[in-house]
Amino acid sequence: MRIMATRFISLLFSLLFLLYSGISFAKPTPSFPSSIIRPEKISLSTPTEPYQEKFFTQVLDHYTFRPQSYKTFQQRYLISEKYWGGAEKNAPIFLYTGNEGDIDWFAQNTGFIVDIAPHFKALLVFIEHRFYGKSMPFGGNKDVAYSNSSTLGYLTSTQALADYATLIIDLKKNLSAADSPVVVFGGSYGGMLAAWFRLKYPHVAIGALASSSPILNFENITSPYSFNNIITQDFRGESEDCYRVIKRSWQEIEDTASKPGGLDLLRNNYISASSLHNWLYTAWVYTAMTDYPTPSNFLSPMPAYPVKEMCKAIDDPKTGNNTFTKLYGAASVYYNYSGTATCFDLDDDSDPHGLGGWSWQACTEMIMPTSGNNEDSIFTASKWNYDDRAASCEAYFGVEPRPSWITTEFGGHDIKRVLKRFGSNIIFFNGLRDPWSGGGVLENISSSIVAIVAKQGAHHVDLRFATSEDPKWLQDVRKREVNIIAKWLSEYYEDLDPAY
Amino acid sequence: MRIMATRFISLLFSLLFLLYSGISFAKPTPSFPSSIIRPEKISLSTPTEPYQEKFFTQVLDHYTFRPQSYKTFQQRYLISEKYWGGAEKNAPIFLYTGNEGDIDWFAQNTGFIVDIAPHFKALLVFIEHRFYGKSMPFGGNKDVAYSNSSTLGYLTSTQALADYATLIIDLKKNLSAADSPVVVFGGSYGGMLAAWFRLKYPHVAIGALASSSPILNFENITSPYSFNNIITQDFRGESEDCYRVIKRSWQEIEDTASKPGGLDLLRNNYISASSLHNWLYTAWVYTAMTDYPTPSNFLSPMPAYPVKEMCKAIDDPKTGNNTFTKLYGAASVYYNYSGTATCFDLDDDSDPHGLGGWSWQACTEMIMPTSGNNEDSIFTASKWNYDDRAASCEAYFGVEPRPSWITTEFGGHDIKRVLKRFGSNIIFFNGLRDPWSGGGVLENISSSIVAIVAKQGAHHVDLRFATSEDPKWLQDVRKREVNIIAKWLSEYYEDLDPAY
Repeated sequence: MRIMATRFISLLFSLLFLLYSGISFAKPTPSFPSSIIRPEKISLSTPTEPYQEKFFTQVLDHYTFRPQSYKTFQQRYLISEKYWGGAEKNAPIFLYTGNEGDIDWFAQNTGFIVDIAPHFKALLVFIEHRFYGKSMPFGGNKDVAYSNSSTLGYLTSTQALADYATLIIDLKKNLSAADSPVVVFGGSYGGMLAAWFRLKYPHVAIGALASSSPILNFENITSPYSFNNIITQDFRGESEDCYRVIKRSWQEIEDTASKPGGLDLLRNNYISASSLHNWLYTAWVYTAMTDYPTPSNFLSPMPAYPVKEMCKAIDDPKTGNNTFTKLYGAASVYYNYSGTATCFDLDDDSDPHGLGGWSWQACTEMIMPTSGNNEDSIFTASKWNYDDRAASCEAYFGVEPRPSWITTEFGGHDIKRVLKRFGSNIIFFNGLRDPWSGGGVLENISSSIVAIVAKQGAHHVDLRFATSEDPKWLQDVRKREVNIIAKWLSEYYEDLDPAY
Repeated sequence: MRIMATRFISLLFSLLFLLYSGISFAKPTPSFPSSIIRPEKISLSTPTEPYQEKFFTQVLDHYTFRPQSYKTFQQRYLISEKYWGGAEKNAPIFLYTGNEGDIDWFAQNTGFIVDIAPHFKALLVFIEHRFYGKSMPFGGNKDVAYSNSSTLGYLTSTQALADYATLIIDLKKNLSAADSPVVVFGGSYGGMLAAWFRLKYPHVAIGALASSSPILNFENITSPYSFNNIITQDFRGESEDCYRVIKRSWQEIEDTASKPGGLDLLRNNYISASSLHNWLYTAWVYTAMTDYPTPSNFLSPMPAYPVKEMCKAIDDPKTGNNTFTKLYGAASVYYNYSGTATCFDLDDDSDPHGLGGWSWQACTEMIMPTSGNNEDSIFTASKWNYDDRAASCEAYFGVEPRPSWITTEFGGHDIKRVLKRFGSNIIFFNGLRDPWSGGGVLENISSSIVAIVAKQGAHHVDLRFATSEDPKWLQDVRKREVNIIAKWLSEYYEDLDPAY
């Protein structure tokens, strides 16, 4: 069973939803053969400076004691002692709870931790999530690990959290750093893991910065229309015309493709309406997510404020009334900002950051309704339909989702009431331009479980390296985060030694 | 692989430690054939008034998504709506997190919840722990469920907690009682589960009464000498002579058994020194644990203050210098308080409360060091030795313990520092006559994570039915517990509806 079908790949848990968006198309045609643009391939053998790559022998199953549970695998982590104040000073440990991809990629895109490490004299540790990158159970062989549900079945968020606890406790022991406080960081799914880690392992982590973590995007908590409403607003906020062109385009693609010779018109080549639809959808969604205020290269090289750039392309008077020229110009902001591509593989199923396992997670526990589109949506109107998801998961993996599991295990319903009198030391950051912000915690829960909301922010923008062009609001967000983390640490050291 | 060897059965997780107490004996001789005294057998088909017996279809493995994980079993629970104020009034639910035995037995011995239910208008629910009583995975067939480590591997505390969360969420849904607050109760291992449940599932339970829950009796937290030191103190506190007789007896048994014809002297019959040792050890340990101030029938029918009664028997001038007569008289307080036994089966391996699964738990995650005996111990001096435990577990089950797992998953180290700023609404009750109290939380941690300590109390005495003979200190303990629970509920209702 190979599971890397294009439409099942989920970059930062988004593309998957295409499959369930209620728009179904014929099987894609074969890929273009030449000059394909892909996001820069990360070399897995060269960890990003300042990190060293290490491995930990991790147990396969923490939650049963069957003979198979005792199998082990090599879990990768990146570590940097460059800024650390040392165990004898109980200097802190900043731990990134890896999400669904190569840990190197997350390390490269989480410069905030490196930026603040010298101030806090922090040891930096990035742990890779099981079943991603090099952290592959079953002999390190991805083909085996991903071969069927008996092996993939061990790819779960709860096992990953237990991995992190086990690894960091062992690491602290080896460093004789039992009293060094651990603060966890994460963005996106990694942010969900960071928040849950603080809630479930308060004895391991004294606090968590959970950036753009949609822990409420589960059953009957967040509206399934929220995700696409935010994307709609992102584009519509730039220009009403830009919104209207994209909104109308889906029908135009269908109409054109169904005409005799219509496919030729689409892009002077033999592509299907389905491929074009997916290609455009991907561009709009990811550009909305990564609508950063400075040039970036997270999912793809892009200019500052790329949504604005896309709408500029669409609104360009030179494009006249030609929808396809407009769409092509806008999509090029995402696919060809470097300007070197001569043509595109609309069915490119490469997975440069190793994100393929998310499809499995989205078919088992991560049932996050996001694919609803109301009448005003920039996409075609559609309803979230759990049964469609379940049927696809049955067809792809032969697995039945457990849509209530995440809220059973981690909560989410009535979170303000539940956490008002329970827990502490969590920052939930959300940028409101990020479609995932609809499933985030947007209001303070208690004096130490707080929400930081940036109206102009996108997906975990706070965690990126600081640049000289960062707007003031972003600098302020990071300052607040640093101050809160400093307070957690002060309290910790006072509790450790009242004479501190 | 049959695993019900006498010395591996653990009543309230104690007998197991016999195996590891450092005293090893030859294989026991066959049992006596007639007139055997056993604790009253609970009928599994007749739930205790006021409960109804029900079953819930529970998933086998919450933490993986392998095909096998989806197997289900029928989990038993007892429920009583007799005192419930109803869903429309958001009346509370009192949930007992079942421990290692038939849930009926725990229901019978947790009268406190019934006593206070009318005051709180509470729905009562007792959930049976997986792999105990009738809650048997693998088709309800205990022989299959207990046949090997591939099946027994699913018997874990984490799976049990997830069972409880899953069941109660479903039950509330079916009762349309989503806003009814849940308070969890448990004693002994059930108390550990109650405390952990509040810590891990704050979205399900608003508070926990964890009675006699030795959550600190794990690696390098509680001294392995603590357990037997407390038993020693229990007996020594009654009389120095009583303590000395028992302390000396172990050598006397050995010496006598090794003499020609010595076994005849022991009890006028062919028994081994090992059997006699175990038989006496069981009596002293369980009597210390259940040294209740009123007559009881928890592990065995007993008078009020049975340790005192045992020491009276030992100190009885009529017994002169005959150690064996003294021991027999004292042990009879535990084994024959009803006075109907004519002889005893020293190798009785019956398991009337279905506690056999604890041996597995004590060989996997529940590595609770208690078998150390210092020079002053009432038992023979010995050290806690993890390697002995591991070797026995390998021999019995072919399983390797994970001695660090419980503290990794649930914490325990530096609990005051960790929970000072995290969590809320837990009562830790301990009676200091209970040998398990050494591993309990004996000091307040925060304003709402509190310790109630009763100097004269024994193992979860607070959870027993009130009687007219209860001493004032016990009445006071229960009053404090009721007041604290009432406060949790008031706060909850205020949070739910500020106009409350």
